[in-house]
Amino acid sequence: MRPSTDIAGGGAPRRRPIGVFDSGVGGLTVLHELLVALPQEDFVYLGDTARFPYGERSPAELEQFSAQMAEELLRRRAKLLVVACNAATSAALPALARRMMETTLGVEVIGVVRPEALQAVAATRTGRIGLLATPTTVASGAYERAIAEIDAHVTLHAVPCPTLASIIQAGRQFDELAVQTVREACAPLRAAEVDTVILGCTHYPLIRLMLQRLLGPSVTLVSSGAALARQVEHALSTRGLRTDHDGEGEYRFLCTGDVDGFREVGTRFLQMPFGEVEHVGLAHVEALA
Amino acid sequence: MRPSTDIAGGGAPRRRPIGVFDSGVGGLTVLHELLVALPQEDFVYLGDTARFPYGERSPAELEQFSAQMAEELLRRRAKLLVVACNAATSAALPALARRMMETTLGVEVIGVVRPEALQAVAATRTGRIGLLATPTTVASGAYERAIAEIDAHVTLHAVPCPTLASIIQAGRQFDELAVQTVREACAPLRAAEVDTVILGCTHYPLIRLMLQRLLGPSVTLVSSGAALARQVEHALSTRGLRTDHDGEGEYRFLCTGDVDGFREVGTRFLQMPFGEVEHVGLAHVEALA
Repeated sequence: MRPSTDIAGGGAPRRRPIGVFDSGVGGLTVLHELLVALPQEDFVYLGDTARFPYGERSPAELEQFSAQMAEELLRRRAKLLVVACNAATSAALPALARRMMETTLGVEVIGVVRPEALQAVAATRTGRIGLLATPTTVASGAYERAIAEIDAHVTLHAVPCPTLASIIQAGRQFDELAVQTVREACAPLRAAEVDTVILGCTHYPLIRLMLQRLLGPSVTLVSSGAALARQVEHALSTRGLRTDHDGEGEYRFLCTGDVDGFREVGTRFLQMPFGEVEHVGLAHVEALA
Repeated sequence: MRPSTDIAGGGAPRRRPIGVFDSGVGGLTVLHELLVALPQEDFVYLGDTARFPYGERSPAELEQFSAQMAEELLRRRAKLLVVACNAATSAALPALARRMMETTLGVEVIGVVRPEALQAVAATRTGRIGLLATPTTVASGAYERAIAEIDAHVTLHAVPCPTLASIIQAGRQFDELAVQTVREACAPLRAAEVDTVILGCTHYPLIRLMLQRLLGPSVTLVSSGAALARQVEHALSTRGLRTDHDGEGEYRFLCTGDVDGFREVGTRFLQMPFGEVEHVGLAHVEALA
């Protein structure tokens, strides 16, 4: 992992990095799955920590923020964009995808909702799927729509979890309060006898074990990272964009807020060494779109 | 998770706990897989932290320590014993199993080596399996023997890792030093083109992601916990010892050393709330066997 500061210029498309963005550290659980699934690829991750959390923002704001994040990652020569944020995906993915396809580069954008919906529908045997997510994501209906488009006969049981992401963000995921919160969230899913549960928030993979214990060993858990990794691999292959580099890829980090805080909390989410983080000023970002 | 302090007395065999012991916190990664696979069962975990690490001990000492740990867990009414420690399993499992079978209770003992060997042989397609373990475990030849017994045509490539467990134990598993150490350990396994790797030390599941990235996404990782969980489930079922309790089981902790240090480091290994830890005096333990 060598830091790379080359922003301008071209380079062979195959050797350009994959760009990943999120409102904060949550998307790092998505990045960590991508690092495993595509170890030769380079990655650049942008956390919009100065404007975290995205959950309270209006759809119009999220469209604008997402466009700005995407433009910054294109400046870093991203060959593909991953929106590792449920709120931004739910509110802004179609607009962002149109915007990117209209640029001369035609960079593809992949969000978190559809890959999970696809994987959950493929996994369920009973047709009863559960969803754990923030209230904003549940209210957006994005997972319901994505699942209905894939298979109209599948039922989604959605449980909004208002406090779970912040308990995890605060590093309190192994406190008794966390178990109690998870226990309550899982109770309606157990009652509905779902056989597959979508972790609809990028923070939840950090408590995967606890969720599996409380839902039972026969329930299949579907998380954004693993589901996305497959789709990113597919998108790169079909477009001839898989790296031809043979060794270990590089990854690096940008954030709009405090660099040290981002690295400290981020390491817990990434579960890999973090290295240097580059600060990107909000004024700069706001001028991009 | 309510603490239970009832030591003496009988109770229905099905409702007795599963006893798990290790020299320290490493076995908690085994316990955490058991908690997921058998969520209704009760568990009691004993860490012999006062005599940690077992790696430097003689086979005779390990036989004696294991017998003492087992006797303490039988006092806690264990219905099945799990040796969640590679060193103790390699040196003392046959003697311990004989000792337990000779008691009137006839309690079964399951160690970490054989379940992993079975799972690795089942997983390999090329017949080339890798092993990452401490030098003591590699030198014992226990995995080689277990694999040869199952399938003589499988080749085991063993890599001793002298520092990895202590890097993880110290909480430095996401430092650049850890990646460098793992990179060097994985290099001979990549060169040997193994398709399956046994994590032969209970500390290694904490860096599973890093191992998977450095070995490549097509390599199957086999860890003690997941492999053991299946065998424990099987042993309980065939002996009619599965709990008939329907709710969430309890789990609790004993250790021979410092209680606070055990809880602090242990939480990182268990990835679940820890609750109370009971101190068990070494003098008491040493009088048991």
